[in-house]
Amino acid sequence: MPEPVVLVLDADPPPRLGRLTGRARVLRTDGAGLADRLPGADVLLVWDFTSDAVRRAWPGEGPRPRWVHAASAGVDRLLCPELAASGTVLTNARGIFERPIAEYVAGLVLALAKDLPTTLALQRERRWHHREGQQVAGSRAVVVGAGPIGREITRLLHGLGVQVALVGRTARRTIHGIEDLGPLAARADWVISAVPLTPATYGMFDARFFGLLQPSARFINVGRGASVVEADLVDALNRRWLAGAALDVFADEPLGEQSPLWEVPGLLVSPHLSGDTVGWRDRLSEQFVAMYELWAEGEPLPNVVDKERGYVPSADNSAEKSAETEDTSPE
Amino acid sequence: MPEPVVLVLDADPPPRLGRLTGRARVLRTDGAGLADRLPGADVLLVWDFTSDAVRRAWPGEGPRPRWVHAASAGVDRLLCPELAASGTVLTNARGIFERPIAEYVAGLVLALAKDLPTTLALQRERRWHHREGQQVAGSRAVVVGAGPIGREITRLLHGLGVQVALVGRTARRTIHGIEDLGPLAARADWVISAVPLTPATYGMFDARFFGLLQPSARFINVGRGASVVEADLVDALNRRWLAGAALDVFADEPLGEQSPLWEVPGLLVSPHLSGDTVGWRDRLSEQFVAMYELWAEGEPLPNVVDKERGYVPSADNSAEKSAETEDTSPE
Repeated sequence: MPEPVVLVLDADPPPRLGRLTGRARVLRTDGAGLADRLPGADVLLVWDFTSDAVRRAWPGEGPRPRWVHAASAGVDRLLCPELAASGTVLTNARGIFERPIAEYVAGLVLALAKDLPTTLALQRERRWHHREGQQVAGSRAVVVGAGPIGREITRLLHGLGVQVALVGRTARRTIHGIEDLGPLAARADWVISAVPLTPATYGMFDARFFGLLQPSARFINVGRGASVVEADLVDALNRRWLAGAALDVFADEPLGEQSPLWEVPGLLVSPHLSGDTVGWRDRLSEQFVAMYELWAEGEPLPNVVDKERGYVPSADNSAEKSAETEDTSPE
Repeated sequence: MPEPVVLVLDADPPPRLGRLTGRARVLRTDGAGLADRLPGADVLLVWDFTSDAVRRAWPGEGPRPRWVHAASAGVDRLLCPELAASGTVLTNARGIFERPIAEYVAGLVLALAKDLPTTLALQRERRWHHREGQQVAGSRAVVVGAGPIGREITRLLHGLGVQVALVGRTARRTIHGIEDLGPLAARADWVISAVPLTPATYGMFDARFFGLLQPSARFINVGRGASVVEADLVDALNRRWLAGAALDVFADEPLGEQSPLWEVPGLLVSPHLSGDTVGWRDRLSEQFVAMYELWAEGEPLPNVVDKERGYVPSADNSAEKSAETEDTSPE
C-alpha cells in the first residue's frame, strides 16, 4: 500500500514534519499550485492560515483530500460551499491558541486600565506626569464567543477579579445567549470579541452596537476582523462613544501602510499576533502529527469543524444541534 | 476637653476630612511651616508622601505629636532617628496599595511578555510586523519583599500560571530567606522588587545582582528607588545582562527632564503611579478617619510601623522579633 500523500499549503516548510517519514509522502505547494496538486492528495495541511487558496481551488475538477487540517483556530478563510457539502473532514488547531490569546487579552485589559500607552508616550517626551489608573478587580467585562478561546479569556479575567459575562450563541448553564449581549455590553467596562467569522458574526459589531456602550468602555477584538464594521468603530471612537479599542485582527490583513486605522486616537493596532507565542509553530506541527497518527489508524479525529456552523462545537452544546434546524449565531 | 489638633502636611487639602468636624481641629501646613506647627499638634497626617519635611522638622524643639500617620506604604521619607527613638506611634496605609500595585505588576509582566511597547512603536510607523510573544504561564518569577504588597503580587502572578518564589528577610513557611535570592534570581524570567527602603535594602540591586540574571530576564521595581543602583542597572541593560526593566520608583523623584534614565533602551519609566487608582485619595482619607476614631477612643491602632525595621511587620513574623537582636533585611 503506498504511503498517503500529505499536501502542505505553504511557501515555507513547517517544522518537525520529518516525523512523518515512512508514514506519509509530504509534498508542498503554494497557493498557485494548489489546484493542480489537490486531486493527488489524501490529506491537505493548510499551514499558511493567511491564504484563501483553498476556497479558490477546491471547487475545481478531480478527487479531493479526505481530510483537511487548518493550522489555525478560525477556518473562515478556507471554508467554501463545495468543501462544506463534501465528505471531507475539516479539523482545526483547537488547543494551541487559547492560553496565549487569553494572556494577550488580560495584558491589554491591565495595560489599558493602567494607561501604559500614555506612560510610554510621556517617557519619549521625558515628562514626569503622575496619573491615576483604574482598578481592574471589580470591573465588568463581556466576552463574546463561548468557544474555547472565549472561555479561557473568561477564566483568566475572572482570576483577576473581573466580573465576566460570557456570551454564546444560545444560553446554556453559565453562558448567556446572544439576546443578552446588548444589555450586558451597556454596563461593561470591557467588551472582548473572540467570535469566529460566520454569516451571523459578519459585521455584528457596528454603529448600533458601539452606540450601546458606556463612554468609559473599551472594545478588544481577537476573533476575526470582519466581525467589526471598522468604519463604524472609527466613527464611534472619534465621537467618544467608547474610551478605546484594540484590534488584533482586521477585515484585510496585513493592514496596508495607507490604512486610516493606524492613526485613530484611542485605537491600538497589533498585527494578528495574540495567539502566537514562541514555539507555536512547533506546537501546531506536533498537533498535526499526532492527529495524522490517529487518521492513519482509522481512529476518529478530534477538533472536527462543523462545516455548516463554521467552527468546532463545544462538547456541551453538540447535543443541542440535533434539536436545531439552523444555527448561525456567534459562538 | 479641647478637640485634638490634627495637623495635615500638604499644600492641598485631603478629601473627606470634614468627617472629623466636631472631633478634631484640622490644621494644614506645608513643609516650610511644619517645624513651627509640630509642637501644637496631637496627630500628624503626612498626606504629602513625597515630602521629607518631617525628617527635617522632627529633631527640633518642643513637644511632638503622639501619632504620625503616613498616607503611603513606605515611611522611608519621614523616618529619622529622633522619631524612631520617640514614644510617638507611626502608622502607614497598609491595605490601600496592595491590589493596585499587584495589578500594575501583572500588567507589566503580560505587556512585556507580549512585547506591547514594540507593537505601539510599530503602529506609529504604520508597520505590520508579526512577532512571537512569550507565554507567561510557566515562566518563573522572584518577588523580593514579603510584605503585603509582595504577597499580593505573588498571588496575582500565581493566578496567571507563573511559578513565583517569594523572598523575604528570613525564611518562613512558603517564603524564602534573603540567602536564596541569588540562586532564585539566576533562574528567573521576572525579578520584581517590592522592598521598603531600609539600611539593608539600600542599593541591594547592584551590578553584582544584575550580573546573576539570565539575559532573557526582566527586572521590575515598584518598591523604592534607592534600593536600585540606577547606574548599575543602566550599565547592565546596555551590556544586555538582562532583557529589560521597568522602574516606577527612583532614587530622586520626580525624575528630571535631563535624567539619562528616560532613554535607556529596554527601560520603561513610569512616574510612581503603580499604586494609584481612581479614588485612592478617598480611600486613604477614609482609612485615616477610621484610624482616628480608634485613636480618639484610646483603642490600639492597626498598621503600626516597627520604627527600627522601617515597615509594618507581618502578623506571621512579629513573633520572630523577640528572638532576634537585629534585623535589617528586606521584607
